[in-house]
Amino acid sequence: MKVNLEAGNLILRLWFMLHRTHDMLKACEDQVFGGYKITTEQFTVLATIKYLGEPAKVTDIARWLTRSTNSVSMIADRMAKAGLIRRVRDRSDRRVVNLFITNKGEEFFKPAILAGWQFAQEILSPISYEDKQTLISLLLTVQYNTHKHLKPEENIEELRRHEAKLHANLMKRLIQYISPSTPEAKRQSGKKEKTR
Amino acid sequence: MKVNLEAGNLILRLWFMLHRTHDMLKACEDQVFGGYKITTEQFTVLATIKYLGEPAKVTDIARWLTRSTNSVSMIADRMAKAGLIRRVRDRSDRRVVNLFITNKGEEFFKPAILAGWQFAQEILSPISYEDKQTLISLLLTVQYNTHKHLKPEENIEELRRHEAKLHANLMKRLIQYISPSTPEAKRQSGKKEKTR
Repeated sequence: MKVNLEAGNLILRLWFMLHRTHDMLKACEDQVFGGYKITTEQFTVLATIKYLGEPAKVTDIARWLTRSTNSVSMIADRMAKAGLIRRVRDRSDRRVVNLFITNKGEEFFKPAILAGWQFAQEILSPISYEDKQTLISLLLTVQYNTHKHLKPEENIEELRRHEAKLHANLMKRLIQYISPSTPEAKRQSGKKEKTR
Repeated sequence: MKVNLEAGNLILRLWFMLHRTHDMLKACEDQVFGGYKITTEQFTVLATIKYLGEPAKVTDIARWLTRSTNSVSMIADRMAKAGLIRRVRDRSDRRVVNLFITNKGEEFFKPAILAGWQFAQEILSPISYEDKQTLISLLLTVQYNTHKHLKPEENIEELRRHEAKLHANLMKRLIQYISPSTPEAKRQSGKKEKTR
C-alpha cells in the first residue's frame, strides 16, 4: 500500500504542477504583453494565425487552442473592431470565416512577439539543451494522453506529423520578428524552399 | 548561427508546448467537472482551500493561483451565493476574508475530486515513475524561473520548503476522497501526527 500512496502522491503533485507552472507563465505573459497594449488572449490569437498560416479559419484556431468556436468568434469580433484583424467569409462556403492580420495588427504583433520571445528565452534558456528536449518529449506524452481522452477516435500519429509541419513553418515565419538584427536570420527567413 | 536557430526553435517549441499541454488538460477538466455541475474554476478554488487548509484567506488563494485578489473575490462571491463556501471576515483584521467550505460545498467537491483524480490517473499513470519525477523537477525549474521574473526579491528556497509542506498536508487531507474504499487509506487519513 505504501507504494500506491507514493505513486498517488506523485500523480497529484504532477497534476497540480502542470497547472501551477502554466498559471505562473500566464501571469508573467500578462505583464509582458500588457506593456505593449495587447492582451495575452489577443496575442495568442495573432500568434496562432501566424502558426497556422494566413488566412486562418476561426474553427482551426479554436481547435488549436482547444476552445469553442463561439469563444474564438467573440474574441475575433472584438479584435476586428479594434482593427487588429480582418474577418472575411469564405467564397465557397459562407459558414467559414477566414482571419487575416491587418497592418495595424502587424504593428502590435511585432514588438509583442519580440518581447514574448525575450521572455521565453529568459525563462527557458537556463534549462540545458538535453533537458529542454526531455521536457518537450514528456509534455508531448501528456498531450497525447489528453488527446486520447478528448478525441479517442482521432489518429495521434497524424496529429504529430501535422504539428511537426506547422512548427517548421512557424520558425520560418517568426524568425524575422525574433531576430531582426542578424543577417543570417533574415536570409533564413527569406528562403523559399518547402519544409515538409 | 545554425546552433542558435536550432536553440531558438527548441525554446519556441517548448514555450508553445507548455501552453498547449495546459489548454488540452483544461479542456479535459471542463468536461470532467462539467459532469458534476461544478465549473473547473469553482473546483480549483475548493481544491486550493483544501490545499492551503481551512480557513483559507482570499489573498492566499489569489497568490497561490497567481491571480488578482479582486478576481478571486468575485469568484468567491458567486460561490458563496451558490452556497458552496462561507465568507467570514477576520476578527482581528476586518480587511481579511476567510473562506470555509460549506456542507453543500463538500457534497459537490467529493465526487468532483474523485472524478478529477481518476482523470489525472488516466492521463499520468502511463508515464513511468522516473519520468514523472523528471517532469516534476523540470517544471519546477520553469516555475522558479517565472517566479524570479515575477518576484525577483522573494526567497525561492523558502517557497520550495513552503510548497513541500503544503503538499504533504494536502495528501493527508485528500486521501479520504480519492481512495475511499481502502482501509489503509482511511487509516492513513486518520493519522494525526504532524508532517513538516
